[in-house]
Amino acid sequence: MHIALDAMGGDHGPEELIAGAVLAVRQADLNVSLVGDEVRLRSILEKAAPDHQTASRMRIVHSSQVIEMNEHPVEAIRKKKDSSILVAFDLVRKGDADAVVSAGNSGATMAAAVRVLGRLEGISRPGIASFFPTLKKPVVLMDVGANVDCRPLHLYQFAVMASCFSRIFDTENPRVGLLTIGEEGGKGNQLVKETYPLLKSSALNFIGNVEGRDVFQGNVDVIICDGFVGNICLKISEGLADAAMQMLRKEILKSWMAKIGYLLARPAFKAFKKRVDYSEYGGAPLLGINGTGIVCHGKSNAQAIKNAILEARKMVKYQVNAEILKSLAADDNDRLMES
Amino acid sequence: MHIALDAMGGDHGPEELIAGAVLAVRQADLNVSLVGDEVRLRSILEKAAPDHQTASRMRIVHSSQVIEMNEHPVEAIRKKKDSSILVAFDLVRKGDADAVVSAGNSGATMAAAVRVLGRLEGISRPGIASFFPTLKKPVVLMDVGANVDCRPLHLYQFAVMASCFSRIFDTENPRVGLLTIGEEGGKGNQLVKETYPLLKSSALNFIGNVEGRDVFQGNVDVIICDGFVGNICLKISEGLADAAMQMLRKEILKSWMAKIGYLLARPAFKAFKKRVDYSEYGGAPLLGINGTGIVCHGKSNAQAIKNAILEARKMVKYQVNAEILKSLAADDNDRLMES
Repeated sequence: MHIALDAMGGDHGPEELIAGAVLAVRQADLNVSLVGDEVRLRSILEKAAPDHQTASRMRIVHSSQVIEMNEHPVEAIRKKKDSSILVAFDLVRKGDADAVVSAGNSGATMAAAVRVLGRLEGISRPGIASFFPTLKKPVVLMDVGANVDCRPLHLYQFAVMASCFSRIFDTENPRVGLLTIGEEGGKGNQLVKETYPLLKSSALNFIGNVEGRDVFQGNVDVIICDGFVGNICLKISEGLADAAMQMLRKEILKSWMAKIGYLLARPAFKAFKKRVDYSEYGGAPLLGINGTGIVCHGKSNAQAIKNAILEARKMVKYQVNAEILKSLAADDNDRLMES
Repeated sequence: MHIALDAMGGDHGPEELIAGAVLAVRQADLNVSLVGDEVRLRSILEKAAPDHQTASRMRIVHSSQVIEMNEHPVEAIRKKKDSSILVAFDLVRKGDADAVVSAGNSGATMAAAVRVLGRLEGISRPGIASFFPTLKKPVVLMDVGANVDCRPLHLYQFAVMASCFSRIFDTENPRVGLLTIGEEGGKGNQLVKETYPLLKSSALNFIGNVEGRDVFQGNVDVIICDGFVGNICLKISEGLADAAMQMLRKEILKSWMAKIGYLLARPAFKAFKKRVDYSEYGGAPLLGINGTGIVCHGKSNAQAIKNAILEARKMVKYQVNAEILKSLAADDNDRLMES
């Protein structure tokens, strides 16, 4: 197994990314290609992996350009032909790698994946899935930003793709819910109302509508929505978690007793933080491309990068794409394509 | 000032609602009409307000029917002509009350308001606004569920209404943001892209796009979105807050030291909880009706009901509806009406 890491993307620079790759090759049976500026990466790698055993499982693939976080994805991909993200996906195209992990510009990562590898056969719109921590197992939400205006067919296909993906957590027959604003079948906007019967008549384990408050309860494995709603869910959850922590810290700092109390309860807070921390959950898979790719948060630390690499390995091992093709074939796609 | 309280709605029954009304009349210069089953309400009121001073500022208005939480709003309003919520709005229509507060079926409350009082002149779709706690002042989000499929004109009008409403918190020239998934003007779904120029060219203090993570930062006073997105934001925030508290509690209960720590830090937790507790923020105003109405969470306690009654009083005092009419007139509505 061989994972290509875009070693130039992310807010913390190549040092953090390479540290993540080192953790990954030490933990699992895999090799990593670090894609980026050769001279720079070489000197970082020599410090990060001085032992032969680790170094022998990492190689550097040179690329001369980097796509910045704020660049327009499609334009950047067109102009920067030798950018690290394009070179990384090209390794997969040539059969020199099995998957790509990137913490860079996520729009550009998606655009590069589609340009170099193309879409998976029968998939109308590739998308991005993401994990949400819950009281039980994490739930997979799709789409979280790749497709802002969707048709029912797209949502049905998100459901197929996210279901197949969720099996990498050993979820048998994943329960699929449609995100809306009321539990009954008739509730929601036009898109949701038209998507409901498609999911209902599919071979998926569709359990019906779910509401925002159900997301964190863990009673559903996969939640489907358009990319506009999904991205807002993701960002609002991150924003609320951050703000709540800031407010709580402020209150605790107001009294000595509260500060002591907090110190005593600290291990519990740490365990809690670990449970809700994005870096424990790897990255967000690109689903619907003819290959495997994962985008990570720009602020990903080494731990998050390691988990994303292990997740990519699992996606390849579980043959998520082959499962998606099988699942699509199980439904009457001709009828669905009209939706 | 006279507020009509639907004394039959809500999960906790009339006792809790009347307790809230008692708190309100003791705190502020206002009268309350309790609408519902006369015999039942009379006996509760006698216990809740044995003193003449309080009792003299409350009266009971009989109604023989109640709309349940799970009833279909429009059908229920049509069938139950003597329901407490219709009778309450009828008091406003006849000039016997200035505003309605209800913790009952919120769809039915909105339907009753529109049926009895009608829409405010020039308003195409009334909606529901809601507060979100932030690191600074609470932010007003609209719409949170009344209108699931919207056109740009509706979003513009939500911005006008929510801006006028937010002035009851002494917010001068409220900053209005458009909820979307990227900061730049071009980012978002079709609806957002078409709404942006309308807001930009309006007389409102439009500061541009805001993302989900900005909601809790307190750098914007009013956030606009369609009712589908807004309702999901509301529910996902409630769901996350609940789930996080459950997860944290579980971690704390695992060790004695953490439990002691929690006890010491408890006042800080309580202060935090108060800051994020919905019951501190009153209810959600119905905006765009020809009158004043507030819907409260079904699980509202007496404190929440009191705050909603005080909020209704403030809305009447600040003449929110007159401000909305003035603000609409400031923009070129003929051009907008085509949107």
